[in-house]
Amino acid sequence: MGIPETIPAPSGSQKKLSLICFSGDFDKLTATFTLATGAAAVGYEVNIFFTFWGLDAIKVKQGHAFVGKGFLGKLFGFMMGGLRNAPVSRLNFLGISPKIFRYLMRKKNVATLEELVEAAKELQVNLYACEMAMHILGLQKSDFVHEVKDVLGVATFLELSEGGRTLFI
Amino acid sequence: MGIPETIPAPSGSQKKLSLICFSGDFDKLTATFTLATGAAAVGYEVNIFFTFWGLDAIKVKQGHAFVGKGFLGKLFGFMMGGLRNAPVSRLNFLGISPKIFRYLMRKKNVATLEELVEAAKELQVNLYACEMAMHILGLQKSDFVHEVKDVLGVATFLELSEGGRTLFI
Amino acid sequence: MGIPETIPAPSGSQKKLSLICFSGDFDKLTATFTLATGAAAVGYEVNIFFTFWGLDAIKVKQGHAFVGKGFLGKLFGFMMGGLRNAPVSRLNFLGISPKIFRYLMRKKNVATLEELVEAAKELQVNLYACEMAMHILGLQKSDFVHEVKDVLGVATFLELSEGGRTLFI
Repeated sequence: MGIPETIPAPSGSQKKLSLICFSGDFDKLTATFTLATGAAAVGYEVNIFFTFWGLDAIKVKQGHAFVGKGFLGKLFGFMMGGLRNAPVSRLNFLGISPKIFRYLMRKKNVATLEELVEAAKELQVNLYACEMAMHILGLQKSDFVHEVKDVLGVATFLELSEGGRTLFI
Repeated sequence: MGIPETIPAPSGSQKKLSLICFSGDFDKLTATFTLATGAAAVGYEVNIFFTFWGLDAIKVKQGHAFVGKGFLGKLFGFMMGGLRNAPVSRLNFLGISPKIFRYLMRKKNVATLEELVEAAKELQVNLYACEMAMHILGLQKSDFVHEVKDVLGVATFLELSEGGRTLFI
Repeated sequence: MGIPETIPAPSGSQKKLSLICFSGDFDKLTATFTLATGAAAVGYEVNIFFTFWGLDAIKVKQGHAFVGKGFLGKLFGFMMGGLRNAPVSRLNFLGISPKIFRYLMRKKNVATLEELVEAAKELQVNLYACEMAMHILGLQKSDFVHEVKDVLGVATFLELSEGGRTLFI
């Protein structure tokens, strides 16, 4: 368990896995980064396209201040919360599950979400942000961690993910 | 941003994107139609297979009256609501997010869901309804907008989406 | 409708469908098994990789007792509930939908979830459990129904699902 080690990518035609990370829920973000690092570790080219609530995972955190512009942007920012407060999709109503999850992950020596994000960067997983969702939520490239490679529209993402598998999470 | 313009499909082997639209949430419907129109605009053959809650997106709206048959069908219809009342998956409890989303989309000059549905039709995105889910919910083909091309079972959908990518949304 | 009949798989290169079953919601489990049995019935090789909440679908049920180890495991087990109590993702707050769904499925002569699971086994759908999620939740292979073929990590799952379509549900 834990963070997988890097294995050199095979020469020739590289296998490809692309993930559309739509959800900002803690459990789904964990699934996204587990799949991404697991695939990258065995030599896949991996692309993650963050959109809608998923954009929250790549934002630069500034305490509880939101980096988006305008009142509605601020409202959405408030509702989206930060990575450390990411809700668990099914158990959010209890308000305790992300903490339990983290605790379980630590106790069992499984990588936590922050560690998986770190591993993704080291394994050269490509992180992209969705242009349209950024536009709606009033976000700019400078609002994201610098590891975000580029801002893309749907057409460009479809092109670069062509020839591999794509999952919507 | 906004609705993409049509670009002629390439001759020869056409790329294909198929979307299983399971969710009736406003944000996921937006993602479905954004992906569909974005792909169709750059020449992909696009198929959307509406099932379960996703069926709500293609129903003919008749005020608040539900078109399904029987008491339980009516109950489900009531719970499913209409496109204009589609909940946002994460923020539904606030009851205000679809309105904010629409407002943000309008203000930012991004296509609204209704406009994306229109664009999908113009871009010849193929809309299909899931036979089994219709059966469960007491719906018939006549309950849907006339742009719905056909009612399909799983096997037929798998066959027509073969050779391309398929996403479950 | 109902459970599809078996059709012999074509010789030569068999089509492949792999499903990552992340959700434990009744409606999404129904979608998972409907897709799996529908594909297997027309000759696809079908693999289901159960992870996170999806693991609940393949657990041996022992009344309301949870088979996981430790206090936190028990807490999660309690929150996850059993297959018969699987929540419906959108309508869970009403607490009545799974029952209505089942009733509708029976009344309309559509296969219920338990019947679909049975059909999956008969159609030789391959059931796998996610090693990392089991580790987090304190589950062991002996906690699952004996039809679960193997416990896999991400890399092994990616390998066996290569060359076909993969959906995240």
